[in-house]
Amino acid sequence: MRRATVIGAGSWGTALASFLAARGLEVHFWGRDAALMQAIQQSRRNERYLPDLALPAGVRCTHELGSLPASDLVLMVVPSSAMAHTAQLLASTAVAQSQVVVSCTKGIEQSSGKRMSELLGDHFSGPQLAVLSGPNHAEEVARQQPTAAVIAAEQQETALALQEVFTAPWFRSYTSDDVVGVEWAGAMKNPYAIAAGIARGLDLGDNAIAALVTRALAEMTRLGSRAGGKAETFSGLSGVGDLVATCYSLHSRNNRLGIALGQGQSLADYQAKSPMVAEGVPNTRSLYGVAKKLEVRTPVLDAIYGVLHEGKSPTEGLIGLLSREPRAEAE
Amino acid sequence: MRRATVIGAGSWGTALASFLAARGLEVHFWGRDAALMQAIQQSRRNERYLPDLALPAGVRCTHELGSLPASDLVLMVVPSSAMAHTAQLLASTAVAQSQVVVSCTKGIEQSSGKRMSELLGDHFSGPQLAVLSGPNHAEEVARQQPTAAVIAAEQQETALALQEVFTAPWFRSYTSDDVVGVEWAGAMKNPYAIAAGIARGLDLGDNAIAALVTRALAEMTRLGSRAGGKAETFSGLSGVGDLVATCYSLHSRNNRLGIALGQGQSLADYQAKSPMVAEGVPNTRSLYGVAKKLEVRTPVLDAIYGVLHEGKSPTEGLIGLLSREPRAEAE
Repeated sequence: MRRATVIGAGSWGTALASFLAARGLEVHFWGRDAALMQAIQQSRRNERYLPDLALPAGVRCTHELGSLPASDLVLMVVPSSAMAHTAQLLASTAVAQSQVVVSCTKGIEQSSGKRMSELLGDHFSGPQLAVLSGPNHAEEVARQQPTAAVIAAEQQETALALQEVFTAPWFRSYTSDDVVGVEWAGAMKNPYAIAAGIARGLDLGDNAIAALVTRALAEMTRLGSRAGGKAETFSGLSGVGDLVATCYSLHSRNNRLGIALGQGQSLADYQAKSPMVAEGVPNTRSLYGVAKKLEVRTPVLDAIYGVLHEGKSPTEGLIGLLSREPRAEAE
Repeated sequence: MRRATVIGAGSWGTALASFLAARGLEVHFWGRDAALMQAIQQSRRNERYLPDLALPAGVRCTHELGSLPASDLVLMVVPSSAMAHTAQLLASTAVAQSQVVVSCTKGIEQSSGKRMSELLGDHFSGPQLAVLSGPNHAEEVARQQPTAAVIAAEQQETALALQEVFTAPWFRSYTSDDVVGVEWAGAMKNPYAIAAGIARGLDLGDNAIAALVTRALAEMTRLGSRAGGKAETFSGLSGVGDLVATCYSLHSRNNRLGIALGQGQSLADYQAKSPMVAEGVPNTRSLYGVAKKLEVRTPVLDAIYGVLHEGKSPTEGLIGLLSREPRAEAE
């Protein structure tokens, strides 16, 4: 692969654009904010979302979708709420003639309950589709700290071609054929990271957070398997790996949001102050709807839904969880 | 259950003795150090291992095994290296006539490769045997922070009776019939916590630690299943729950040891300064031997064995792990 297009200029899109340029690809980098893209083109830094990274010269910035060429590789790195609309806009551009389109966004569309690559499939008929996921904080990838990712695609040759691109001495990628499981795992970890953050904000301790993470993993596996993923995927990098990275890292916006809620801030106040999207807020609503529809038992998700969207206090939400009847672990 | 005996006066034994007394049981508390036990009896504090906890009046301290009565419940909370010898000494005392003996120690005996409850079975023929495990930092249990544990026993009625004892508004216990899996899970998390600590000491970042934890869980499941545990146990509190609690908490002696090694201290220097036993050091040797005998692939365990017992540098050990050939995740 020689030419790549990166759609979305948040921290992860910026880190990925830089990674691909450093691997020798010609990179076209799109963001919707004209002023931001012009500033990045000139200063070689995304001061708003990833200020410490100097972008290689090979990254060409634009805010015009119509100016983008067809590529060997398109990375979709927009927020989950913008994925369908962005794909629709791209469908009538040269980008739709690209070889491979990869979703790098974690989430489930709220109105439809669709996975991100399903939305891409609705608008792109030519390109092969794939998913990049795993415990990949953009800030650490930008600093070239050791990182492992999963690349899922239905076509094995697509996964292998992407694996070749996403390999560096400090960056390892593993292939998977379980697109559905990898996407569900990625979408589900965000609400649980908010829950872990709330527990931290309430100062419940490491034992409580570990118990919460364990139950979150069981819930992810239960719901994601019912939705069509393979159970084993949830024990891998895109499942438990991303879950623990998100629940235990202060890089995570969702975890930081949870901490603020646990410490007594309101969701509205926190959101008014933070320019970054905490994907877990819309994710929780989408997943809650899907869980009810599929009739899967999800007490942790229900608790965090109650706190985010039904006005329950963080203490009420988590105490409800901790005061259930004792039972056998395997039940 | 009315009368309990707690054998071992480290931080976990002290927290458990206090818990049982607060639940209304008569508690006999044994430690091998006469001066320490006398000091605890008088000051109601274990200044050496858990100084912040005031022991309830119901806890009776002694250093004489022969003075202990038969109990409804005996908790064995000595280091894994002392379990066989302590059980042997108890076998000729009244304690051997107790109803239930519970191992609260995580580890595999180095010379024999036996689990702790196997060692107890070698010396106690009368009592029912059980295991208490999970993400249970003593310091947090002492402060009554929310905690969940697993109680494993072959006899369901034993597990249920213990569950009733180990229940409080802030302490939840789950039963399991997989004694083997629960013990292997508990024994294996310590070496991995050292590995996570090394990664932290080397400042490799959250992505690297999450990848390491993911691979550690796969390894635990592989080795523990081969040794006779149920795979699902490793996805529970005694498996992934305790693994993440230990890998991400500064309460963990093993994690702290790893951090010191990653920052350049030698094992000998660290051990000379720390009065607490980091179980992971002997555990790594025992598990390495078992893995070789059972012919199970354990690259993470091998790496940590190399650092602890073969003089490899932390960087060598972890870089060996990160530079393996890319592959499919499920391989």
